[in-house]
Amino acid sequence: MRLLRFGPEGQEKPGLLDADGNVRDLSGAGVPDFAGAGVSLDALDRIRALDIGSLPVVDAPGRIGACLASVPNFHCIGLNYSKHAAETGAAEPEEPILFSKASTALSGPFDKVVLPKGSKKGDWEVELGVVIGEECLYVSEAEALSKVAGYCVINDVSEREFQIERGGQWVKGKSAPTFGPTGPWLVTADEVPDPQALACSLTLNGQVMQDSSTSDMIFGVAHIVSYMSQFMKLVPGDIIATGTPEGVGMGMKPQRFLKAGDVMEVTIETLGTQRQEVTAA
Amino acid sequence: MRLLRFGPEGQEKPGLLDADGNVRDLSGAGVPDFAGAGVSLDALDRIRALDIGSLPVVDAPGRIGACLASVPNFHCIGLNYSKHAAETGAAEPEEPILFSKASTALSGPFDKVVLPKGSKKGDWEVELGVVIGEECLYVSEAEALSKVAGYCVINDVSEREFQIERGGQWVKGKSAPTFGPTGPWLVTADEVPDPQALACSLTLNGQVMQDSSTSDMIFGVAHIVSYMSQFMKLVPGDIIATGTPEGVGMGMKPQRFLKAGDVMEVTIETLGTQRQEVTAA
Repeated sequence: MRLLRFGPEGQEKPGLLDADGNVRDLSGAGVPDFAGAGVSLDALDRIRALDIGSLPVVDAPGRIGACLASVPNFHCIGLNYSKHAAETGAAEPEEPILFSKASTALSGPFDKVVLPKGSKKGDWEVELGVVIGEECLYVSEAEALSKVAGYCVINDVSEREFQIERGGQWVKGKSAPTFGPTGPWLVTADEVPDPQALACSLTLNGQVMQDSSTSDMIFGVAHIVSYMSQFMKLVPGDIIATGTPEGVGMGMKPQRFLKAGDVMEVTIETLGTQRQEVTAA
Repeated sequence: MRLLRFGPEGQEKPGLLDADGNVRDLSGAGVPDFAGAGVSLDALDRIRALDIGSLPVVDAPGRIGACLASVPNFHCIGLNYSKHAAETGAAEPEEPILFSKASTALSGPFDKVVLPKGSKKGDWEVELGVVIGEECLYVSEAEALSKVAGYCVINDVSEREFQIERGGQWVKGKSAPTFGPTGPWLVTADEVPDPQALACSLTLNGQVMQDSSTSDMIFGVAHIVSYMSQFMKLVPGDIIATGTPEGVGMGMKPQRFLKAGDVMEVTIETLGTQRQEVTAA
């Protein structure tokens, strides 16, 4: 299933993209908004059991919001592609690097990205997003993918000065409002037979900046979910941004950072395309 | 007001400790559970407007849970006391260091602390917890305290090997389930005239390990809230653990880490005392 949320910001309704490309309104069918338990494996099974053809078609869905209404945690993996680690001057990690975005960074896939006040080094990162569908604590790598509700596109927008030059941990440069465009769709796991075989790319003002595949990840999704679950409990609706390939602005020579008016298009095979215009706070 | 949540894990009800030390049940008065908008400044004003004396007294409140049912973000400040920075071998930070715990680390103030599998370096940290009551983005230091719903005790339980020796960011060592005992009470800000004048201490098996005051913070609460709001939007129910004073296990010579059977008592003046027995997963 391709699940989505449509409507003005803060008033989105849950919907489903049917085989003909129509948005079907799930809100009248007793389907809770997509967040937390609303995207548990059980909740997804209840949607699967609906007679989709009988649900109302939304003639003009309008804005598509983030495919999750909120997230219990916005987890991220750092430096998970060899060439990206190299372009940032970092060594390839021996274990997954975990960090987080504030949950308030979550935003719609077509909403503007707002550079925070004082930002000089805004940057882009196409990433495969993994949405957890069942509690995970001490989950084996073999079992890990069975705990995944689905996948989505994330642009892990970053402010490199805030992230790296302001002391301490990365969260400072990852958390501004609109720094987490997520969607357009939550594509359920059954439609993604191999999360390590998805082409992913990002263009800036039409120019290809990132062009890679999730096959290039150092640590794959199953390993990441299992690994994380040794340190923390993952819960339904948690999202994990699994790292970005090479081609970010801080890795260019000379470096290139976001400015108002820039347009990013962010695509992952099977999962759809985002588009954001950049503006300044 | 001293707000609390009482009842078995997952079935807590919101309550209030009245002037006579009785727990009053707020759940029948239309008071939502304490989380997110449930602890907004407006929501607290609605509780204040109730006739407390008419609310039922809970004869046997039983277990006291975390004073928040869930948190949108579990933000933390690192190395915010000079002597603690020194004992860990770190320089005093020039700006607040931000990191986060997984929101699933939240636990009750008297619940057992469970060392995760493989843990060898569990550690303790008494911290002043700040609960946000109103959205904050680009808030001035002068305005910051007016955005605070209240304060509580937090034990920022940490696994130092996971935090420091497993690559990357601190979140890995801060996020295990039960690593965030929070409460017993959410004491509303009006009852804490100066958050920088609170004695705070922690004992391990009856021995005083930490004994300090929030007056020793490098960055005070007003500065922290204002500073964070330059990088992210804070929302009602967000919690900020504001750093720990000297006296943690990793700073001792020889180092001393938690083992099953240890008992921590964690106290902050005006905000109450926690007690946790340590066990192992």
